[in-house]
Amino acid sequence: MGIERIKEHIRVVHDFPQKGIVFRDLTTVFKDQKCLKDLSSLMTDEYKNLGITKVVGIESRGFIMGPIMATNLDAGFVTLRKPGKLPAETYKESYQKEYGLDTIEIHKDALCEDDIVLIHDDLLATGGTMFAAYELVKRFNVKKIYINFIVELEALEGRKLFPADIQVDALIKY
Amino acid sequence: MGIERIKEHIRVVHDFPQKGIVFRDLTTVFKDQKCLKDLSSLMTDEYKNLGITKVVGIESRGFIMGPIMATNLDAGFVTLRKPGKLPAETYKESYQKEYGLDTIEIHKDALCEDDIVLIHDDLLATGGTMFAAYELVKRFNVKKIYINFIVELEALEGRKLFPADIQVDALIKY
Repeated sequence: MGIERIKEHIRVVHDFPQKGIVFRDLTTVFKDQKCLKDLSSLMTDEYKNLGITKVVGIESRGFIMGPIMATNLDAGFVTLRKPGKLPAETYKESYQKEYGLDTIEIHKDALCEDDIVLIHDDLLATGGTMFAAYELVKRFNVKKIYINFIVELEALEGRKLFPADIQVDALIKY
Repeated sequence: MGIERIKEHIRVVHDFPQKGIVFRDLTTVFKDQKCLKDLSSLMTDEYKNLGITKVVGIESRGFIMGPIMATNLDAGFVTLRKPGKLPAETYKESYQKEYGLDTIEIHKDALCEDDIVLIHDDLLATGGTMFAAYELVKRFNVKKIYINFIVELEALEGRKLFPADIQVDALIKY
């Protein structure tokens, strides 16, 4: 089955990016043509009839499946980027990382009140980045927000950050 | 026609990222559902029968259309990233930017000799980044390399860097 094949292709790298971290490397999934195709349907099918108008991807690993999902769902694709990368006016949100604060930005004209938004990133760990993304998207008073990941590290309880009425999905859980 | 609609959606930002630069902002294209769909076919159709097995995208803006093209072509997607982002063993290549050297990396197991590769980035300016990408991909002795961009700034003559037998395509030229 597609999902088993994808799991087998995830590379486990110890002590990356720092000592003690077990890193789940998805590059070995994306580079496999069959895995990429399976991911494309597995990540999209359940959102098909929800009227999603925009997929928002978080730089940079959320840019890989995000645009594929947007195309599959007939939605537009919006980038959430690191500071200084977006050329027009932005909203910013800062959040705590292991070492100090990090910031992400979104263009002020990226979304509108009529949008139904799916925010995507590759992996849910402590959830700090996605929570900042969620706060940014909320500023646009969009109709509805969905959140999804390819992988969730359940022990870190990142999903607890989000209100109970927000659907948070992950294809593969550890 | 699709390509005219895409052109109309490109936002022109003056003096970004620095004074004197006229920046072509594609975020306004990607966020438009119809433009993204048109881009998806326009960027892919001519590569359909070339047996491409891997699309290589350059971080980060090459990660947007790259994965869509990979899915359309039944190919895998490979990331070319900034230093320190890839968890396994890499090849590195440095190149000159406006201010000093920049480096990109690729996993040593990302490609193999049987691959036919399409390297993608959003925009061709002076071509330094893409040339470094091309040098990296060459190390794998792949069967054939194609290069493509959404936008080319012809006055900067970036395409002159590449050998005449390498097909370098751009959908929109200024």
